[in-house]
Amino acid sequence: MTTARDPEDLLQRARSGERRALGQLLTVVERGGAAADELTRLAHPLFNGAQIVGVTGAPGAGKSTLTGKLTRLAVINGDRPAVLAVDPSSPITGGAILGDRVRMNDVAGEELFIRSMATRGHSGGLALAVPGAIRVFDACEYDPIIIETVGVGQVEVDVAGTADTTVVVVTPGWGDAVQANKAGLLEVADVFVVNKSDRPGADDARRDLEMMLDLSHVTGQEDASGYRPPIIMANSLDGTGADEVWKAIALHRAHLESTGQLAVRRRGRLAAEVRNRLAELVDVSIDELMESSDSRALLESTNQKETSPAHAARQLLDRLFG
Amino acid sequence: MTTARDPEDLLQRARSGERRALGQLLTVVERGGAAADELTRLAHPLFNGAQIVGVTGAPGAGKSTLTGKLTRLAVINGDRPAVLAVDPSSPITGGAILGDRVRMNDVAGEELFIRSMATRGHSGGLALAVPGAIRVFDACEYDPIIIETVGVGQVEVDVAGTADTTVVVVTPGWGDAVQANKAGLLEVADVFVVNKSDRPGADDARRDLEMMLDLSHVTGQEDASGYRPPIIMANSLDGTGADEVWKAIALHRAHLESTGQLAVRRRGRLAAEVRNRLAELVDVSIDELMESSDSRALLESTNQKETSPAHAARQLLDRLFG
Repeated sequence: MTTARDPEDLLQRARSGERRALGQLLTVVERGGAAADELTRLAHPLFNGAQIVGVTGAPGAGKSTLTGKLTRLAVINGDRPAVLAVDPSSPITGGAILGDRVRMNDVAGEELFIRSMATRGHSGGLALAVPGAIRVFDACEYDPIIIETVGVGQVEVDVAGTADTTVVVVTPGWGDAVQANKAGLLEVADVFVVNKSDRPGADDARRDLEMMLDLSHVTGQEDASGYRPPIIMANSLDGTGADEVWKAIALHRAHLESTGQLAVRRRGRLAAEVRNRLAELVDVSIDELMESSDSRALLESTNQKETSPAHAARQLLDRLFG
Repeated sequence: MTTARDPEDLLQRARSGERRALGQLLTVVERGGAAADELTRLAHPLFNGAQIVGVTGAPGAGKSTLTGKLTRLAVINGDRPAVLAVDPSSPITGGAILGDRVRMNDVAGEELFIRSMATRGHSGGLALAVPGAIRVFDACEYDPIIIETVGVGQVEVDVAGTADTTVVVVTPGWGDAVQANKAGLLEVADVFVVNKSDRPGADDARRDLEMMLDLSHVTGQEDASGYRPPIIMANSLDGTGADEVWKAIALHRAHLESTGQLAVRRRGRLAAEVRNRLAELVDVSIDELMESSDSRALLESTNQKETSPAHAARQLLDRLFG
């Protein structure tokens, strides 16, 4: 039976420009399960090759405002951008109770689609939902697709890092560049933005980043073609620097295409998605196993100090694969 | 053969007070593998029941300084505290290049052990290393054991949330309490600290937290015994409020003991550790599978749009369990 929420019907309507159907498809993606799998099967062959831009950085760095400016530049350029804003999950609220998203209303229009996504429960949901949402946007001919994430957790950094072009936003102030480095953001950056560049310490932040890039050159971050992430001073409130960020993204894309890196990144993204899907399926099996009476007995024995946690885990592994 | 790094020998020396042996044991924990499993087997039955205190919050909230004050109070009280400071992982640096840890030198002494831990590669390492380190500290009769984490990623929140008592530190300023809520910190908090309480907005932050606690009361966060996390105004620079935080931790511990929740939390922590260990073992199997020629062919077919990523993952699941 074909219902109003049938993925095939929704996809057809979304591809013909029906925004509400697109919104419903993204809900299908968020919810996961069989309908999301079916949607993946239908949308995967429709690949259009939109540019995927990740925008990430610490909370309060001005990611949303910069994303808004970039989106506006895309619209002016005649593009059809989509924005996916990812919120950290919360078991109770299911996401943000107040979000950055409200600030972006001023650019919302027909040629632009903005969606915020909250993943419930465990972080694995995010790793599956983001590629799913990208696939849907791409099949509906949105391009570029901007993914905005708070660059603070491993999953969030992974999500940002699998974009075609990853923009890392830092702000002036002692330690911000250092914090970005600690969070693993420096390794995934293709373009750096020092935002709020009118504030004291902006030049220091730039110097810190240059120094870290010099160091990472030694450890091999710079690829064979000699690409080095540019550092752009910006002020997203008055729009300073947004043009330059936009150009840097285009330059990086050209670099990816000319060096064959674009295809490599896409293959890598797909492999990561398949692996994350597999891990998710295995996770369900692990949950079932943990609820079994065998596992409960083993956990009680561990609690009584008769079995070590390491030994208990190995016993359970045998049962999982046995 | 018994070597200098033999876990049994190291554990014996650490338990007789040799600080260097304790440091080496923590390195064994960090590195994981067979030696860490052996250490787990040896240390697990030595459980002394130290109080585990998690201190978490956004970067720059003043966690380290507060932890320092609490540690000093513990020493004055005649306790033997240990601090485990967890750094976000970085593939390149293997952790912090500049860390909060330096600020805590002023309290270091014989009755105190401070260790910072950086986990390499993937976030799973942290979920295994922290319980391992707690076990070692506990076996060596350190009590309380304070775990300081940046409360920003799911793994970090999980780590903080599995302590006996979790202290969540926020600072004044619009949205900080909201950010803490988005990151899932509110659900795991047993004690709130509004740090830097001399700054504008401190009362607002307190009100925001009270409001969120009122809301969470509706959704059932407050347990049946009526425990509600206290909100303490503090200024970790001049030490204001640290005494009160210390007392709140002791009160929460008494609450856990009188309601039987302490045993429940300990069992939950052990079950989570066993599950994380199992997931880690499975992860190795998944990595091996992903590198197989079968998987490579399947990924290429996915890349050619002939196979959907969802279908590819199911095929791989069959091979993993087949």
